[in-house]
Amino acid sequence: MKIGFIGVGVMGNGMVKNLLKHGYEVNAYTRTKAKAQEAIEAGAVWKESVADCVRDADAVITMVGFPPDVEEVYFGADGILENARTGVPVIDMTTTSPRLAERIFLEAQAKGLRALDAPVSGGDTGAREGTLSIMVGGERETFEACLPILEAMGKSVLYMGKAGSGQHTKMANQVAIAGTLAGVCEAVAYGRAVGLDTEAMLSAISGGAASSWQMLNNGPKMLREDYAPGFFIKHFVKDMTLADGEARLRELPLPVLEKVLAMFRALEAHGYGNEGTQALIRAYE
Amino acid sequence: MKIGFIGVGVMGNGMVKNLLKHGYEVNAYTRTKAKAQEAIEAGAVWKESVADCVRDADAVITMVGFPPDVEEVYFGADGILENARTGVPVIDMTTTSPRLAERIFLEAQAKGLRALDAPVSGGDTGAREGTLSIMVGGERETFEACLPILEAMGKSVLYMGKAGSGQHTKMANQVAIAGTLAGVCEAVAYGRAVGLDTEAMLSAISGGAASSWQMLNNGPKMLREDYAPGFFIKHFVKDMTLADGEARLRELPLPVLEKVLAMFRALEAHGYGNEGTQALIRAYE
Repeated sequence: MKIGFIGVGVMGNGMVKNLLKHGYEVNAYTRTKAKAQEAIEAGAVWKESVADCVRDADAVITMVGFPPDVEEVYFGADGILENARTGVPVIDMTTTSPRLAERIFLEAQAKGLRALDAPVSGGDTGAREGTLSIMVGGERETFEACLPILEAMGKSVLYMGKAGSGQHTKMANQVAIAGTLAGVCEAVAYGRAVGLDTEAMLSAISGGAASSWQMLNNGPKMLREDYAPGFFIKHFVKDMTLADGEARLRELPLPVLEKVLAMFRALEAHGYGNEGTQALIRAYE
Repeated sequence: MKIGFIGVGVMGNGMVKNLLKHGYEVNAYTRTKAKAQEAIEAGAVWKESVADCVRDADAVITMVGFPPDVEEVYFGADGILENARTGVPVIDMTTTSPRLAERIFLEAQAKGLRALDAPVSGGDTGAREGTLSIMVGGERETFEACLPILEAMGKSVLYMGKAGSGQHTKMANQVAIAGTLAGVCEAVAYGRAVGLDTEAMLSAISGGAASSWQMLNNGPKMLREDYAPGFFIKHFVKDMTLADGEARLRELPLPVLEKVLAMFRALEAHGYGNEGTQALIRAYE
């Protein structure tokens, strides 16, 4: 079975390698060929365009950056909907808007294609180790048909409901992270301000009711001022902006999300967009 | 070895029983005798006053409610400092202000007593099972002398530094919880607003980067509208108010803590102070 994989970057390389490891053939395309080097060396076949990448594929996966990129690879003249074979499942694993996921679903359907929205959580480590959490929206039948493909990349692959539900679940995930990460930052900032040994402090509070993935993984990075991106600020700003927009449309105030988003936007405006989300601690300095 | 234990409530009963289990004799005093019934049945000796409770004790432990209660049991004419034997360690396990911990330390020292501040995390379950996290401030020598006593009640007993450091660490713990809990609430509120199956949503996001003790323990309670207190809102408001005050004194803005504290104060004003902290979800309804 041959998969056309579009968007081979920090996440995509690991995902492609796991597909190859599970016996899938993979066509690979991404804007900057050099970024796909790892996947190509592992056995993916490089293609020079989206159209070439999907033309002979039995399934299509996209993992690109921002909603406009998703629109281009799906709806462009050189895009997936114009060039994929009839009946093929097309799986967008980019985190994008639930609204866009619904549009892809409907337009794909009109072309005889079956779309899933399947954003992930677990970062580059999860992508490399094949332990991503994958949250899937679309028709259940399509989900079930694609399960083996998704399970090659993830450890938890869950059907969340109709088209857009995968994206909505990912939004909820990002909303939870926003508050949690800010809580960790404020605890670290507090510890510094009062003169605690912050390393001892973090290990004291990491075992109980304050514990979180964010604390265990990003807390120590904050302490050693390691801002290398596990997850880029610029991508988190994108995700939180989408979630904030969806909440506003429904007149649901999410004051903590709004506050955290404002802090991250300020960091991005100061040029920190390519740092990891743990750099939120800079907002407290 | 005999311990004078003051403040035998939801937490204290479990802690006293663990001390008895480890071979300590325990004198018990609390304002309302009925609340100490469990400890008395387990073998603690009831005393009619703070003075009686500490007079023949080799160590004193306090676990009362609010800072004024702590002040009363330490500094009152009937209190610990006037009535405990010279050289005895006095351990305040109440969550209270770091400033008050420093004052107790100095006044105890002037009376020839050795004070520790040793607030805990882990709730009534941790108290019952002897698995509390205990964060200790004071002199290292006193800490080491008291370690066997503390280890009878906790699984993680950590020395954090000079007097007040235990309380500061607990403050940092509560600050982290505030953001984390709000993140969980906003994720649940988002999921409801967009029409997700919130149970499926929670289980999808509980395994990855959004995961936290708060999500795993309080998330499901929010979904089934179970607001029974594991940790009381009124106590959390006390703790956050203390942390907020310490941060303000140092001109450290903690915007997320402030936002969450304001929401909890509003809930308390509406009569929800005796519910568990998971009832923060009410603020999103």
